[in-house]
Amino acid sequence: MWLGMGQADAIAILGGTGDQGLGLALRFAKAGRTVVIGSRKTERAVAAAEEVRAAVPGADVEGLGNEDATGRAEIVILSVPFEHTASTVKGIREVLGEGQILVSMAVPLATAIGDGAVRTLGIWQGSAAEMVQALAPKGVTVVSAFQNVSAHRLRELSNAVDCDVVVSGAKAARERVMALCGLIPGLRGVDGGPLSNARVVEDLTALLIGLNVRHKVPEGLGIRFSGLPDRD
Amino acid sequence: MWLGMGQADAIAILGGTGDQGLGLALRFAKAGRTVVIGSRKTERAVAAAEEVRAAVPGADVEGLGNEDATGRAEIVILSVPFEHTASTVKGIREVLGEGQILVSMAVPLATAIGDGAVRTLGIWQGSAAEMVQALAPKGVTVVSAFQNVSAHRLRELSNAVDCDVVVSGAKAARERVMALCGLIPGLRGVDGGPLSNARVVEDLTALLIGLNVRHKVPEGLGIRFSGLPDRD
Repeated sequence: MWLGMGQADAIAILGGTGDQGLGLALRFAKAGRTVVIGSRKTERAVAAAEEVRAAVPGADVEGLGNEDATGRAEIVILSVPFEHTASTVKGIREVLGEGQILVSMAVPLATAIGDGAVRTLGIWQGSAAEMVQALAPKGVTVVSAFQNVSAHRLRELSNAVDCDVVVSGAKAARERVMALCGLIPGLRGVDGGPLSNARVVEDLTALLIGLNVRHKVPEGLGIRFSGLPDRD
Repeated sequence: MWLGMGQADAIAILGGTGDQGLGLALRFAKAGRTVVIGSRKTERAVAAAEEVRAAVPGADVEGLGNEDATGRAEIVILSVPFEHTASTVKGIREVLGEGQILVSMAVPLATAIGDGAVRTLGIWQGSAAEMVQALAPKGVTVVSAFQNVSAHRLRELSNAVDCDVVVSGAKAARERVMALCGLIPGLRGVDGGPLSNARVVEDLTALLIGLNVRHKVPEGLGIRFSGLPDRD
């Protein structure tokens, strides 16, 4: 078990200044969890934390540099653009410790090389999440989640998000992340099995982006599995 | 436009003796469409047609060999196991004519090489549907659809299927196939853009199979997109 310095129930979100990361920060803060926003530039993280406090009165949220934020929570969500994923993981390697859970939201959209968002790049390790696992220190468990949750829907705090989240990775860790999904109204964590299934989930984001464009849904579609037994 | 020998509104289903193909045959027959079931063995197609007539009184359905069935309909659905997809297309090449629409339901599950159904094989052309397009004669349009529809749900005629179908391929042809989806209660055709998006949709089947196992849903999960404007 991780015995870090932060609150036991804190959630760190690296890249929490971006659209989707900030959306998660708002939702977790609203659910009463301690949130630590990380950014490459501390002042941007501080500003994002202020934004969360303005939207969610009484929010327990702090803004820090990525390294400091990583040391504060057992669960660390990586919400940086794909092209900064590898460098971000390399930058926090020294801070990451045994028992921490690193959540990859990365999607290798071809925008990283100047091509379109409706296509993905092939990743040597199989998926961005598996690349993150290859870069993470031993003892850190990588879980894949949240790729397909619309930032727009996350940030509309008065609405339920209406989306299933496929969570994949080692069993105990993915169950922790599935529980996080349950903190957000309209979000449901779905047991996605081993981390390698991130290959499908990441590609799905590119398909959803295309559907959003073709069907003119600026707020972004969600994905739902029908026929799933609810386990409340 | 295709000027074949069959009924204008006929739908041919090659491999219509299999679970999923027979499910589609039942549903299209119930919707009042002319259905032609194709099989490598004519007697099996005849038996499947009888099964449809028994379940759907008054069904307009016939069983034929694959080549004969292909000549009878403008829209030909390929519902053979993945490992027979290429050989089936090669076997009907001479019969396929200008203007026909060939619907690929193929999913390159690793079961084709003795590995598991929760993984897919990499296909040189990008996807099984694109492989089919590469093998089809000029003038024939390939559309990708129906990969993620549970056979079990299709065959329970008293229930709505509750699933979205991502339809990809050239615009005019995919709109024809989206309209077919609308014939089946609880099925919705979703505009999936170019054929290359079949890469994501095919892989999604492997993910769904894993979800069915992990969540113990023998009747099979469906997929739904939330936030899609309905266009009835």
